Amino acid sequence: MNSLAVDLNARLEGSVVMRLFSDLGKRIFFPKGIVAQSAEARTRGVRFDATVGMAYEKGEPMTLPLLRELTQPLSAREAVPYSPTAGIPDLRTTWQDLLAEKNPLLRGVKTTTPVVVPGLTAGISLTADLFVDPGDVVLIPDLFWGNYRLIFEERRQCRLREFSFFNENYRFNRRAFADGARAAAGSGKLVVLLNFPNNPAGFTPSPEDVAFIKQTLVNLAESVPVLLIADDAYFGLVYDKEAYPYSIFGEFAQAHPNLLAVKIDGASKEDFAWGFRVGFLTCGFKGITDDQAEALEKKVAGLVRGTVSNSCTPAQSVLLRLLRSETYQAQKRTARDILQARYETLHQILENQEAQQRAPMLKPLPCNSGYFMSFYCTPHNAEELRLALLDAGVGVISVGQSYLRVAFAGIDQEDLPELYETIFSVAEALGEQPGPHTNFLQESIEA
Amino acid sequence: MNSLAVDLNARLEGSVVMRLFSDLGKRIFFPKGIVAQSAEARTRGVRFDATVGMAYEKGEPMTLPLLRELTQPLSAREAVPYSPTAGIPDLRTTWQDLLAEKNPLLRGVKTTTPVVVPGLTAGISLTADLFVDPGDVVLIPDLFWGNYRLIFEERRQCRLREFSFFNENYRFNRRAFADGARAAAGSGKLVVLLNFPNNPAGFTPSPEDVAFIKQTLVNLAESVPVLLIADDAYFGLVYDKEAYPYSIFGEFAQAHPNLLAVKIDGASKEDFAWGFRVGFLTCGFKGITDDQAEALEKKVAGLVRGTVSNSCTPAQSVLLRLLRSETYQAQKRTARDILQARYETLHQILENQEAQQRAPMLKPLPCNSGYFMSFYCTPHNAEELRLALLDAGVGVISVGQSYLRVAFAGIDQEDLPELYETIFSVAEALGEQPGPHTNFLQESIEA
Repeated sequence: MNSLAVDLNARLEGSVVMRLFSDLGKRIFFPKGIVAQSAEARTRGVRFDATVGMAYEKGEPMTLPLLRELTQPLSAREAVPYSPTAGIPDLRTTWQDLLAEKNPLLRGVKTTTPVVVPGLTAGISLTADLFVDPGDVVLIPDLFWGNYRLIFEERRQCRLREFSFFNENYRFNRRAFADGARAAAGSGKLVVLLNFPNNPAGFTPSPEDVAFIKQTLVNLAESVPVLLIADDAYFGLVYDKEAYPYSIFGEFAQAHPNLLAVKIDGASKEDFAWGFRVGFLTCGFKGITDDQAEALEKKVAGLVRGTVSNSCTPAQSVLLRLLRSETYQAQKRTARDILQARYETLHQILENQEAQQRAPMLKPLPCNSGYFMSFYCTPHNAEELRLALLDAGVGVISVGQSYLRVAFAGIDQEDLPELYETIFSVAEALGEQPGPHTNFLQESIEA
Repeated sequence: MNSLAVDLNARLEGSVVMRLFSDLGKRIFFPKGIVAQSAEARTRGVRFDATVGMAYEKGEPMTLPLLRELTQPLSAREAVPYSPTAGIPDLRTTWQDLLAEKNPLLRGVKTTTPVVVPGLTAGISLTADLFVDPGDVVLIPDLFWGNYRLIFEERRQCRLREFSFFNENYRFNRRAFADGARAAAGSGKLVVLLNFPNNPAGFTPSPEDVAFIKQTLVNLAESVPVLLIADDAYFGLVYDKEAYPYSIFGEFAQAHPNLLAVKIDGASKEDFAWGFRVGFLTCGFKGITDDQAEALEKKVAGLVRGTVSNSCTPAQSVLLRLLRSETYQAQKRTARDILQARYETLHQILENQEAQQRAPMLKPLPCNSGYFMSFYCTPHNAEELRLALLDAGVGVISVGQSYLRVAFAGIDQEDLPELYETIFSVAEALGEQPGPHTNFLQESIEA
């Protein structure tokens, strides 16, 4: 093992991080090569910086005039140079400040400084690289984003163990979660991945449910190291007062010395900047020291270096300007209010008794947050219904055999009635097709 | 194994690709989930697209006004939506057309359509994921970019086998290359990674050397599957008529049915857009069919999906506008001429006898291309010299014990004499320090 990895591991020795690291997590390090020597030259403010692979002219990054025009109003320094491996420092600290502002439980709490990664998927993928080995079990709700399969099953060769997200009363299934967690912990290590608001259901548990989740994991952390991954892709998009309004990372960042919490979030949904690919990876556990936090950030940065080198500079620069602007909060609130209005119209539509009677085969799952709602459409074949809807000019996602995911957040409020009218009509026209008669509580799905 | 992976593998069966795939390469696939269903909805031009996780308003991506201002002059569609997993289609085909324009041997030659990846490092890292397994041997010159270690040794647990890049006459070491390739092929699979212009030496072999490399690998392809990875980070920056002026990918894309060539290139250095993180991954082998090319692109896209989802949209959009502009070629030529002038000044400085006599301990390695030149600085400790240079206001990179890399491309032409005067003076002042007396041909280095 490289001596730099040995050093980082020594700094993390005795902490939950070392108990959770994958083989790759143990091996990875941040090299003292070009990046470190180049940073040293910049710190020293040398007269001639001949360290890094970039061309400069009169102290400014050399760039094509057209590239400058196309990246207005950014300065050349904001647009074209490489960013540090872990991200633009001001962006990292600004995001950290905002995390505390948005999540009261994080105020005054020590965590790592968020590391910039090229999108939330990268954050989840790097977390998988760092902390799960082939054969490890990852506990997830049975309603989940299909890409988890590619990341955990195909890339990392883990086993996804699903628990029923909803109970028979269409509420968060505490028993299934607790049973699943206890069973998964039997392997001697517990990895839990939670995505609230949930994709595809658009559901966030209640504060009481979150307290139950926390107590369950803290209890298990007494006996096995626990990794809680919070996929906060849809953070902040909570429309109903009964749903837990913060990131669960706030509950877990200092919950137990044997429980590592990793928060994956970013600008994609929160700031309506999907294609920017700016995500953040933040870690915390009870008792984390400054030295451990720095060592952990270097582990993450080492993996960033070995997979993408660094993240997109103009996207980071635009985001930093956005977050620092005086109008940011107001503009975000306006956009969020539009989604809130769409959500409320959605609920008026779904609570209409007539529609429910016309298409009793479409059972809407609970939805209080996020971008999506899903129908359980037994006895239909969801794929058949999806194709019929395409013919009728409506694009939705079929999930497994029996689920249909509708991105209500992507549809103008005034169009929602027509959209759902079409869905109900097409379902009604298809009628009671013979199909697999499964109960939604028993069927494993992904979205 | 997932049935979609089985299908892709069946389409590639019998080709060199299947003989080279890593375990992960065999397992990976492009899911028929959200991305595929969403593409279908777009193709069908549905009235309501409720498939994908983005918010729209009146058919345009919903975005914050400030984000629009900061990404001027891009349209909202160019700035904020997700890009397709494999990249913006027009950007991929435009880059492919440019490849043929820049490399005569690629004209009319069938390859995969370049897949967009988030920077060249990502291209190399994904290639490693697809084609090398733990324990595999990767042949590289002993002058190489240090990040290869992190990618191949730490992430993929391969063994890097180095050959002496220069022979005793300071020319490309054909014998060492051929011996290294034959020895590496002994494992039943040959993986060669070449980076011309080379980092850190700034050296590109001659056309005759490239012919020799080609013949060596084609001969070996008769008995073992061969993967040739061309890291073309510094493509096009060739300043001397004796150096091979094209990408070696052109020589290998159709060289032999048992030889797969992978080209990693991008905008970073070629278009002076380092922080954009727009790279391309292109593959070819003799006899590749359309169906095989498509299957291989899907394998790459599957891995992109499972690591980063997709690459930065505004960066791709800016690059596409740049490549399509009428002034692009002229602006690029102007920038390139500046580097050519810096190179010529560098050579005037290095050929000055007086400087050489003052600091005989600094032996410049041959340099005809790229961003860098390197000194072999025996008997100095390179790190000691680097630190002394920092004190004198000069930042350079120490490589191993005895090499010093100078990024001449980053220094204004008129400053080069002072830069090198400082380097020679500091080396002279340090004098003939006792230090490890190694021959540059025997020392393994990285940069």
